Amino acid sequence: MQLGLIGLGKMGGNMAERIRRAGHEVIGYDNAPGKRDVDSLEALVAALEAPRVVWVMVPSGDPTRQTVRALGELLSEGDVIVDGGNSKFTDDKVHADELAPKGIGYVDAGVSGGVWGLENGYALMVGGSVEDVAKVQPVFDALKPPVSTEEQTAGEAGAGFVHAGPVGAGHFSKMVHNGIEYAMMQAYGEGYELLAAVDLVEDVPGVIASWTQGTVIRSWLLDLLVLALKEDPGLDRITGYAEDSGEGRWTVEQAIENAVPMPAISASLFARFASRQTDSPTMKAVAALRNQFGGHAVHAVEAVKPEAEKPA
Amino acid sequence: MQLGLIGLGKMGGNMAERIRRAGHEVIGYDNAPGKRDVDSLEALVAALEAPRVVWVMVPSGDPTRQTVRALGELLSEGDVIVDGGNSKFTDDKVHADELAPKGIGYVDAGVSGGVWGLENGYALMVGGSVEDVAKVQPVFDALKPPVSTEEQTAGEAGAGFVHAGPVGAGHFSKMVHNGIEYAMMQAYGEGYELLAAVDLVEDVPGVIASWTQGTVIRSWLLDLLVLALKEDPGLDRITGYAEDSGEGRWTVEQAIENAVPMPAISASLFARFASRQTDSPTMKAVAALRNQFGGHAVHAVEAVKPEAEKPA
Amino acid sequence: MQLGLIGLGKMGGNMAERIRRAGHEVIGYDNAPGKRDVDSLEALVAALEAPRVVWVMVPSGDPTRQTVRALGELLSEGDVIVDGGNSKFTDDKVHADELAPKGIGYVDAGVSGGVWGLENGYALMVGGSVEDVAKVQPVFDALKPPVSTEEQTAGEAGAGFVHAGPVGAGHFSKMVHNGIEYAMMQAYGEGYELLAAVDLVEDVPGVIASWTQGTVIRSWLLDLLVLALKEDPGLDRITGYAEDSGEGRWTVEQAIENAVPMPAISASLFARFASRQTDSPTMKAVAALRNQFGGHAVHAVEAVKPEAEKPA
Amino acid sequence: MQLGLIGLGKMGGNMAERIRRAGHEVIGYDNAPGKRDVDSLEALVAALEAPRVVWVMVPSGDPTRQTVRALGELLSEGDVIVDGGNSKFTDDKVHADELAPKGIGYVDAGVSGGVWGLENGYALMVGGSVEDVAKVQPVFDALKPPVSTEEQTAGEAGAGFVHAGPVGAGHFSKMVHNGIEYAMMQAYGEGYELLAAVDLVEDVPGVIASWTQGTVIRSWLLDLLVLALKEDPGLDRITGYAEDSGEGRWTVEQAIENAVPMPAISASLFARFASRQTDSPTMKAVAALRNQFGGHAVHAVEAVKPEAEKPA
Repeated sequence: MQLGLIGLGKMGGNMAERIRRAGHEVIGYDNAPGKRDVDSLEALVAALEAPRVVWVMVPSGDPTRQTVRALGELLSEGDVIVDGGNSKFTDDKVHADELAPKGIGYVDAGVSGGVWGLENGYALMVGGSVEDVAKVQPVFDALKPPVSTEEQTAGEAGAGFVHAGPVGAGHFSKMVHNGIEYAMMQAYGEGYELLAAVDLVEDVPGVIASWTQGTVIRSWLLDLLVLALKEDPGLDRITGYAEDSGEGRWTVEQAIENAVPMPAISASLFARFASRQTDSPTMKAVAALRNQFGGHAVHAVEAVKPEAEKPA
Repeated sequence: MQLGLIGLGKMGGNMAERIRRAGHEVIGYDNAPGKRDVDSLEALVAALEAPRVVWVMVPSGDPTRQTVRALGELLSEGDVIVDGGNSKFTDDKVHADELAPKGIGYVDAGVSGGVWGLENGYALMVGGSVEDVAKVQPVFDALKPPVSTEEQTAGEAGAGFVHAGPVGAGHFSKMVHNGIEYAMMQAYGEGYELLAAVDLVEDVPGVIASWTQGTVIRSWLLDLLVLALKEDPGLDRITGYAEDSGEGRWTVEQAIENAVPMPAISASLFARFASRQTDSPTMKAVAALRNQFGGHAVHAVEAVKPEAEKPA
Repeated sequence: MQLGLIGLGKMGGNMAERIRRAGHEVIGYDNAPGKRDVDSLEALVAALEAPRVVWVMVPSGDPTRQTVRALGELLSEGDVIVDGGNSKFTDDKVHADELAPKGIGYVDAGVSGGVWGLENGYALMVGGSVEDVAKVQPVFDALKPPVSTEEQTAGEAGAGFVHAGPVGAGHFSKMVHNGIEYAMMQAYGEGYELLAAVDLVEDVPGVIASWTQGTVIRSWLLDLLVLALKEDPGLDRITGYAEDSGEGRWTVEQAIENAVPMPAISASLFARFASRQTDSPTMKAVAALRNQFGGHAVHAVEAVKPEAEKPA
Repeated sequence: MQLGLIGLGKMGGNMAERIRRAGHEVIGYDNAPGKRDVDSLEALVAALEAPRVVWVMVPSGDPTRQTVRALGELLSEGDVIVDGGNSKFTDDKVHADELAPKGIGYVDAGVSGGVWGLENGYALMVGGSVEDVAKVQPVFDALKPPVSTEEQTAGEAGAGFVHAGPVGAGHFSKMVHNGIEYAMMQAYGEGYELLAAVDLVEDVPGVIASWTQGTVIRSWLLDLLVLALKEDPGLDRITGYAEDSGEGRWTVEQAIENAVPMPAISASLFARFASRQTDSPTMKAVAALRNQFGGHAVHAVEAVKPEAEKPA
């Protein structure tokens, strides 16, 4: 089939390549002239035969909103827009409602796979109507990982793709995926730190590498941790500074919205916030309180040292 | 080689089978007469040629301590005892120090793999001297998973086995493994609960199955969650009651001992504690306080209902 | 001065009483006919001399929004509306912006004190312009606690009242107050539970009562816990079921919005969520996973019992 | 009555002063010659009439253990040793068991009050037999805060002193007190940080000062936070570095031992650990993982900057 693809960055470019390898025609557009096949959204739409499928793969937030809106002006009844970016699921309903009066369909697709997706395939979590999803299905089939019975204890037919529900369900599922990811990374991190903290364990990278087969905690993330420790066994060349994208925050917000206890994922999110602070106002207040009731002189910013006498 | 194996339960029995399949001779002993090859520890020791290797695979705590002590009376210089159970790592040093004057070696081996180990192999985290570990190596090689270049992004030679350090390092590493396991399970659980809490996601088992390929969070535990949801899609037949064995507790204790922040793993441990309470004294106190300052009548145990007016 | 007061429930009624005791005239309106002085908003506005001050003390959300909007139609340039309810601070800016073109001022006032406020005074956290706040100041002075040099180590002039900043700052400050409250209650609750869990401590209510003088943790909430334990020493007549109002949720949401690590307050919020669940889907998933890798039969909902063998 | 007091540091010296003011005779001993009344433990014991009461107020751990042991050699049947330091409650049973064959009594006393205790009185949580506690009661009465009906909503007779149970119950109760203290300080700290993070709140010290009267969260610690903010309104002169003494760790350990969920107190403990790290190995691992699956170059220790593209 034909696909219009907007956004040819690292993710979009690789996805275009994978879709083409599966025999489909991809007409790509990007703000930057380098790799694009057409020079404008208008030209993109003109180059596609109706009913058209246009996949938007640009940064979430305003860039995606503007692109979807612009496409809404150009497309026709029966066409479908797919938002494959990391949009908040609440945007999807807004988009779908704007497009519906024109008869333009809307599908949200959460995409996981990162730089490994070109070769391994991309996992896809999709929301939309049955009809709209069906129009995009050949592209989803091209993108998703092949079913490998060898590799899988479970899943088979379902692995790598799901039509999760109506519009928004795809991005919601991807959001939860990323929340889980935060806590898994935190779990490995905490375990790594404890191993590294004791003299007893002499070969920390070896222990972690040993976990990659036969254990209960083997995973793809663990394989990546082994790779990272091969490159830098003590993680000496990297600082403990971790960004967060929106999905982790939205996951915890949705937990709050739905009264779901979420202690591990929220702890992981907060650990990322803390990792980016040069000093903690919370702990300044704690230190100030200890000084007050313990009667110690205030610790100067310039010269902090452990206290000789510990009041609490 | 020859191996004496004490404890022929679910784990020990399967391990004996896997070692035998690799061509080694296993002489098994168990308190229960059913499957044992010899009728006493004395007979076990007599049946092995020196230098002997005796693997203890009995419940941790007193049963293991008593067995190691009894073996210490029966074995000779150059023999080696392996504790493959879930012992606390602090026991290992005690055992090794007791055996050292007699010239008996001691190796601690953390074993992961559960009921799947017979077929998939067992991951082994080992502590002890180079000499003692070498005496057991053929058995370790028989137990550990085969190296599969297909299945692995990383690890290769190291996967499934590590000599982590001196006596105690094996059980310490296995303890940390289990701590990580707690937080990974909690992470998947929290994500599952949020998906299940919203109407938007219509196919929760499908979403989770889709994650098993191509995603960042794919893992063996995730495969197992897919299996569990196939058997019971809403987990309606099971209650949220989760035991904990010692390792999770010890992991957090060691974090405290070593001043390692461990928010996600500890949250997972506490969630298990809470899962087993019929009511929470903490939350009774919180409810009592809200009643006090909000001026509400105390809620009777028999008839709790949401409050009409929420004070805080 | 004259004050129009809308909402004569438990809080509003007591506040009217306290303001009257200070010598001011309060004209009260409520949907319910019982205690109101006038029969309609129109009558309320007509009864007040310009410039008018009208205090809205109705449930947050739509009731408050509708009341403020209705007042906006009735009031005149130079009048001021005070929202003293538990509104989300983001509503305040919306209200102020709607009223500004008409020259009607807006002040948000977070009020703390509960049923004890009539006698002890109400703590007030206020947002708005200097001019608008000044118009309400006599009422604030009537409501706030008296300055008692005996009772206070700190604070003096500032105690019980603050003009925290522009519109919204009052409700924001009250929101944070309530977030802190959650964690303080959780802290006492956790301590209470640990004391109650051990045989060693024979007089738990006595220990908690002893903390009310001379300790670092003495507080008004602790005094209330003592009262609660006098009425019900084992908290046997109350269940551990704790509602939450919006402020705790909003506090954590704002922490996320501002990348502030908030582990203790969020843990307290999640503990409340959990307190209201009859079973935990998260822990169902954890239990299901343990069953899968440990090889145990699935635990029936009807008959859950501790496992004989603990796999992890 | 007569009291022997060992340890005349900041705490012990002030306590001696308060006991003397109540009309009792205190014979003080310290390793340092400055303020002591006698030159040796032997001289101390000789100076006291039987039955003697000797209060040990030295650093917990070995110094206390050695002092108690030495006193055990010198005292006689019917005498009583009081350990008023911050000992772990598990030490108390050991001490009592050592002293029992000689007929020497043992009382453990958790003491709270810090530098304010001399004037305000010290809160006392006491463990031991009824007979032994009775022998020390006049000293306890001298140390504890006066009962002030004005200041108290609750407590009266019980405030400031409790005989919590047998040997160990005093230190156990003090340990829990300190655990609660950690979470209260963390709660105020988190609230302070959120207030300080937003532009909306223009007078953060003012907001906190306003909370000291009429609010649900008023407390002595809050009064101290107001004092700290008066001295340094932005806490600019102090770093967020917070020591922990043993009690917080022991509290969480006991929670684990007794399967008590303790999310807020443990989060507060871990926040202190993190406050003392110059970099976090956990977050190094998290950052390394993000780099691996996101395909980003590893961030150098020298030049970390926010990522242009956020993979997760």
